[in-house]
Amino acid sequence: MSLPTHTPVWRIKNSPEDSVVLDSSDEATFALTEEPVPSLEDGEMLVENVFISNDPAQRGWIQKGVLPERLYTAPVREGDIMATHSIARVLALKDSTDQRFKVNDFVYCMTAGWRRYAVIKTDPSACLPVMVPQNVSPTAALGLFGVPGFTAYYGLHDVLKFKEGQSLIVSAAAGAVGNVVVQYAKKVLKAKKVIAIVGSEEKCQWIKGLGADVALNYKSPTFAQDLVNATSDFVDAYFDSVSGVILDQVIPRIKQYGRIAACGAISGYNKDVGKPTMGATWIEVVTNRLTIQGFVILDFMFPKDGSNRVATEAFPSIAGALERGEITLDGTEDIVEVPFVDVPKVWGRLFTGANTGKLVTKLA
Amino acid sequence: MSLPTHTPVWRIKNSPEDSVVLDSSDEATFALTEEPVPSLEDGEMLVENVFISNDPAQRGWIQKGVLPERLYTAPVREGDIMATHSIARVLALKDSTDQRFKVNDFVYCMTAGWRRYAVIKTDPSACLPVMVPQNVSPTAALGLFGVPGFTAYYGLHDVLKFKEGQSLIVSAAAGAVGNVVVQYAKKVLKAKKVIAIVGSEEKCQWIKGLGADVALNYKSPTFAQDLVNATSDFVDAYFDSVSGVILDQVIPRIKQYGRIAACGAISGYNKDVGKPTMGATWIEVVTNRLTIQGFVILDFMFPKDGSNRVATEAFPSIAGALERGEITLDGTEDIVEVPFVDVPKVWGRLFTGANTGKLVTKLA
Repeated sequence: MSLPTHTPVWRIKNSPEDSVVLDSSDEATFALTEEPVPSLEDGEMLVENVFISNDPAQRGWIQKGVLPERLYTAPVREGDIMATHSIARVLALKDSTDQRFKVNDFVYCMTAGWRRYAVIKTDPSACLPVMVPQNVSPTAALGLFGVPGFTAYYGLHDVLKFKEGQSLIVSAAAGAVGNVVVQYAKKVLKAKKVIAIVGSEEKCQWIKGLGADVALNYKSPTFAQDLVNATSDFVDAYFDSVSGVILDQVIPRIKQYGRIAACGAISGYNKDVGKPTMGATWIEVVTNRLTIQGFVILDFMFPKDGSNRVATEAFPSIAGALERGEITLDGTEDIVEVPFVDVPKVWGRLFTGANTGKLVTKLA
Repeated sequence: MSLPTHTPVWRIKNSPEDSVVLDSSDEATFALTEEPVPSLEDGEMLVENVFISNDPAQRGWIQKGVLPERLYTAPVREGDIMATHSIARVLALKDSTDQRFKVNDFVYCMTAGWRRYAVIKTDPSACLPVMVPQNVSPTAALGLFGVPGFTAYYGLHDVLKFKEGQSLIVSAAAGAVGNVVVQYAKKVLKAKKVIAIVGSEEKCQWIKGLGADVALNYKSPTFAQDLVNATSDFVDAYFDSVSGVILDQVIPRIKQYGRIAACGAISGYNKDVGKPTMGATWIEVVTNRLTIQGFVILDFMFPKDGSNRVATEAFPSIAGALERGEITLDGTEDIVEVPFVDVPKVWGRLFTGANTGKLVTKLA
């Protein structure tokens, strides 16, 4: 087969300030172009994106005016190719001395972005070999054995310092991080009680099937009281990916000296979806001596001391739990097969609650 | 002189949910009564309140429906005497074996409350000898050498882990805690830059006189931009007593891995004064790995190990700074002399920004 000479590419057309605009209007956030594929230089390879990761954090990367010094990764500006992690197939390599990759391998890409075909460096800052246990789909490298799974692991272990017998609230529990938090806390760390907050009755059933002791639908009119009822003994920890009014409501349900892992703030990413808060419960952060710690998984995946904690800790721990059946991948990958033109639309599902588990786009 | 047989007493009439009501209407928060003074039992003393402490934290103690298990001290319920710390004079003791007190001594009272005369136990949970350096007014035991001063000390040392050469934002900087934070951080800990947030131009001048490098009036229409301009290098730490929209605005000005001491939330104590927030900057807690730690000074003043860290650390450190002239008491005590009937009105000044420094009521 001859190699592709052109590729469709999604670039940022208008940096979003409030909501993303996923249509083809003048205000659209993304614009589709057709671009030539450059020829390969030494140390590069040509890849074809097969599975595209969809992550709420991407919303932060493209925020209008975001300052590079306030972001843990390079902002994606107007005119830039939309950034994403992806699993791609190697189509060609040029005179590379790098023996890690060969044609037809799946490779984990940080820089292929929203392109069908991309020329990328074989450098570890651009791509890595896919690392999943035997007989596990490479898509798991985007979820359970990727950023979401390791976020769950280090958020529980290092940020929340979560211990056997403790209790936990998890928001966005049906998401890519949340479902691993629920499973890992309940089955591996032997949590006394895991309370999952999700956005529908269907997700309540789903997350209970994964081990949540209680599942609460935050869209239910009785949510506030349901949360109080479910936490009559209060909880030790809160794994928060949404912030906003749900954070307000959870704060009074955390034990004295309890901990909150601030992992995300999806309720405010597209500002029209956030509800205003008066911060009326914030005083309980003071009176009950809560600690809130924001964290970025890169600090744990790539520690400054150069150690590889994922390889020595998180990966074997999660792989062992998977092998013992304490954690399941079944039903936790939401793989949507679409033509390349629909990549932004699938990504947009992250913000409408449409996905369950890890949302992956499979390019048709 | 004969001992008093009756005393005026302020009791809670209506537990406030939103604003406190300081008039004499049916909805009034407090009600004035005249009550007999009980006779002395053994181990008790009769005291006359002279100086009454006014502290924002008292608002939390009386909040309608506050749960005892969610508060660090006993809630004050409808019908209860309004609680306060105070400096009282000993009028009489009954057969006490306690040699710490004698008639005419000033005594630091936790349980005399809003009463002119009170019979209290000589127990340490009810009262303590006034501890201030020589030649210092006993009122300093309510401010610099009391809960506010020690809050500043432990908030800086233990919660913020503040170090020489670092930079700091302090809200409510013209208050009883804030002015000590400014002075101690700048003069004792040798902060590189102290940015004080206050509520008037007059307070800006006043706090700069105490050592603040920059003073910002949060009521100014240019406050948001002023804050950005004053923090072009970002800051290491934030000592927050107000929360709300000011917390929202400060979060993006804190360095990566920076710390926030959550000391109070006065913007929300009377809910009508709080402005709604969308939490739009909360994501920076995540992306910049901030840690927010709520604290209550009692944990430091009365550690579980029974040690007396105030006597061994905070008191000598502050007293030394006062003696060396690094910290001043001049102008930092706002002593308002009023008849007993006006005790609630003076307390209410805490929430209108009327006071500068430690607000103390002197009973006329």
